[in-house]
Amino acid sequence: MKPMDTIIALATSSGVGAIAVIRLSGDMAIPLVDGHFKSVSEKRLSDQRSHTIHLGHIVDKDKILDEVLVSVFKNPNSYTGEDVIEISCHGSPYIQQEIIQLFLRNGCRMANPGEFTLRAFLNGKLDLSQAEAVADLIASDSEASHQIAMQQMRGGFSSEIKHLRDELLNFASLIELELDFAEEDVEFANRDQFQDLISRITNVLKRLIDSFAVGNVIKNGIPIAIVGEPNVGKSTLLNSLLNEERAIVSHIAGTTRDSIEDEIIIGGINFRFIDTAGIRETKDFIESIGIKKTFEKITQAQVVIYLFDGASVGSNQSSVSSIITEIKKIKNKFHQKSILIIANKVDQLNEAQKSNLKDLIPDVFLLSAKENSGVDELKHKLLEFVNTGALRNNDTIVTNSRHYDALLKALEEIQKVQNGLDSGLSGDLLAIDIRQALYHFGEITGEITSDDLLGNIFANFCIGK
Amino acid sequence: MKPMDTIIALATSSGVGAIAVIRLSGDMAIPLVDGHFKSVSEKRLSDQRSHTIHLGHIVDKDKILDEVLVSVFKNPNSYTGEDVIEISCHGSPYIQQEIIQLFLRNGCRMANPGEFTLRAFLNGKLDLSQAEAVADLIASDSEASHQIAMQQMRGGFSSEIKHLRDELLNFASLIELELDFAEEDVEFANRDQFQDLISRITNVLKRLIDSFAVGNVIKNGIPIAIVGEPNVGKSTLLNSLLNEERAIVSHIAGTTRDSIEDEIIIGGINFRFIDTAGIRETKDFIESIGIKKTFEKITQAQVVIYLFDGASVGSNQSSVSSIITEIKKIKNKFHQKSILIIANKVDQLNEAQKSNLKDLIPDVFLLSAKENSGVDELKHKLLEFVNTGALRNNDTIVTNSRHYDALLKALEEIQKVQNGLDSGLSGDLLAIDIRQALYHFGEITGEITSDDLLGNIFANFCIGK
Repeated sequence: MKPMDTIIALATSSGVGAIAVIRLSGDMAIPLVDGHFKSVSEKRLSDQRSHTIHLGHIVDKDKILDEVLVSVFKNPNSYTGEDVIEISCHGSPYIQQEIIQLFLRNGCRMANPGEFTLRAFLNGKLDLSQAEAVADLIASDSEASHQIAMQQMRGGFSSEIKHLRDELLNFASLIELELDFAEEDVEFANRDQFQDLISRITNVLKRLIDSFAVGNVIKNGIPIAIVGEPNVGKSTLLNSLLNEERAIVSHIAGTTRDSIEDEIIIGGINFRFIDTAGIRETKDFIESIGIKKTFEKITQAQVVIYLFDGASVGSNQSSVSSIITEIKKIKNKFHQKSILIIANKVDQLNEAQKSNLKDLIPDVFLLSAKENSGVDELKHKLLEFVNTGALRNNDTIVTNSRHYDALLKALEEIQKVQNGLDSGLSGDLLAIDIRQALYHFGEITGEITSDDLLGNIFANFCIGK
Repeated sequence: MKPMDTIIALATSSGVGAIAVIRLSGDMAIPLVDGHFKSVSEKRLSDQRSHTIHLGHIVDKDKILDEVLVSVFKNPNSYTGEDVIEISCHGSPYIQQEIIQLFLRNGCRMANPGEFTLRAFLNGKLDLSQAEAVADLIASDSEASHQIAMQQMRGGFSSEIKHLRDELLNFASLIELELDFAEEDVEFANRDQFQDLISRITNVLKRLIDSFAVGNVIKNGIPIAIVGEPNVGKSTLLNSLLNEERAIVSHIAGTTRDSIEDEIIIGGINFRFIDTAGIRETKDFIESIGIKKTFEKITQAQVVIYLFDGASVGSNQSSVSSIITEIKKIKNKFHQKSILIIANKVDQLNEAQKSNLKDLIPDVFLLSAKENSGVDELKHKLLEFVNTGALRNNDTIVTNSRHYDALLKALEEIQKVQNGLDSGLSGDLLAIDIRQALYHFGEITGEITSDDLLGNIFANFCIGK
């Protein structure tokens, strides 16, 4: 770890704004700013109470750099646990740079990415999984990803892990105590209670590990490929999904010119629609997949939507059978994926035709994107593909692949302990596996860390946090 | 003016940052935030002292939106003079929007551009020219533009205007008093003292009006056109000017493909170099000016630099005479501009050749961009073209064209007063011209305003200021 010198960084987004905030943390933060701050009250910052704000000027010798508000946070009551100063200056990049340069010349060091949060972790203000949640929180762009990061930052995940760890630690101590009295053949650790704990831990670990699939989807969005011929109404469908929701839309040009991704937030979950334009061109599109990259896009999808023109096939038996052939091909090709068959433009069909379509094509979903009918039902259908039960129940959801790895390893060790219990393994051998499981729990919350691990985690932060 | 409802806006630059600051101002700012803020101390913000900071959570019903720091500023001790709350939240655009939306749903209104500063002006925290300086300060990108905006924001300009206005107002009152005693033929206003005041005002107005040329240049940069044949070392010259200074460089593609502008800050002043690539192609470039737009670029320039290859002409008499012909053409064409003749690559010349060059071409400036010799001297030369005396002496410099217009109009009225004094005009007629001059002074500081004027001024602000 680096020595705890005083660090400085711009804490707000770079660029022009009404104001910008520059943050300093470390032993010298208050005296350094005192040396270059003329308060209108003419009082020194070091004489001020924590959590107070002071109007004045940042001065470099006799030159006034800016009129600013200075916030004082005294250790340990600050974000980092150190003395912290926040300077709220006018939001000109020129002024921001001049102020930062002034303090760099006078004993501050530019903060590394995430270094403020690293210090908060090292000073015990946050555990490691909470610190990681800060970065997730800043990156969150949907209700679900925000909610999970918020829950993790507030300690939901760590407290569940810590609770199990404490119980396990207790048993480990008792078993290790038995070893000291090995010749007397006593059992301090009640084997039934221990079996019960191991079962509970196994269940919790399995639940957390399972939640990663959901967590990952929530963090990164659910990829959905839409296939179908031109003019079946894909854009209209996307637009009507979109218009209903306060949504973030982006058009990301894909690796091929024709592959476009649209992000739509439905029920707080981010769905990434992959418009597979590149393979729409021939009648029998599955056989025309010559474009490898487009095909790869589809294989990334969790759900494949096959959209066809319900109106044109509604009254035409030969069309229907060609659609059915097409659907069979898709189901064979993507048998491992959820497939949703949608007939669009059904506003042009009468009830008898609709009913006929349903009979001929099982599980078909009828919709009119233009008339906006069936769109709400489609949203519910899409949300069903995510197991959002856990999210609604405020259960802990694992989104971080580092946590996922540690949980998998912990489960492996716990299963060894279970096997040991089943086979009546001796306490000294049990203890080794328990210690290994404890180690992996500790990795998550940061009781067990290394410089490399911390370096990796905080390198992904933005500077200033 | 709009009613003083409670307004909200993001005060920091939009985008992802470690933190973001959301600002509320108005009567309801504190109770509104109190309704959606759970302080860790469980105290209400309305019970807190001004200029204090509180840790807690922004909650929407039972959903936690973010962990935040809330700063409380109680009227009149705030930027706007109203109750102000600043919420420092995590810098995710999603969170910023969620918090702003929460308060918009609960009685806040989105602030218009500059509305916080407009309220500061209406509440007497700033005069109009100070308010305008806030926008200039945020936009400042060089030391000089920053210094002028800072001086204006701190009241340097207004106080000079106000001082003159007060003196003039005093005389106006005395002259108007004479009118009440018209039949008694008394003179309350001493005509000699009045003549003295009018002279002083005239001098100050002239100085301020003259400073606008400098102020404008400082605000917008000094345009310098560089002309010359290819390979005389223009890029090398720009680079060596650049390397010497902490500078902002931008490559702005001009209106024509070949016209490029480079901004270089020298001695805190922004110089815009216009590389007139489009007219470099023929030997006799002045005659080849067929490209109207490139020519227009040159006409915008304050200074024209003619750069030639000193090495190739140093020993070649026929070359020298063609350069001399070229220089004559330039001087004729741009006789109204400052022209700087520079011989580059003089490192390849011996002393005798250099001396010869100086004899043949009067006022030639010898330089080797590659060897970096003569570059410092060139910088001094360029700075001479700006009358930076005023800047160095901390004199007031006018940069705002609205102020410039008002000063011109005030001077016109003051000259009428002077003419009136010279011709022994009666007090009642003098008073009319004095009132007109006072009106124009008042326009600058904001004693005289209209909704249209305020609307125009604050529309140029960013939202959140």
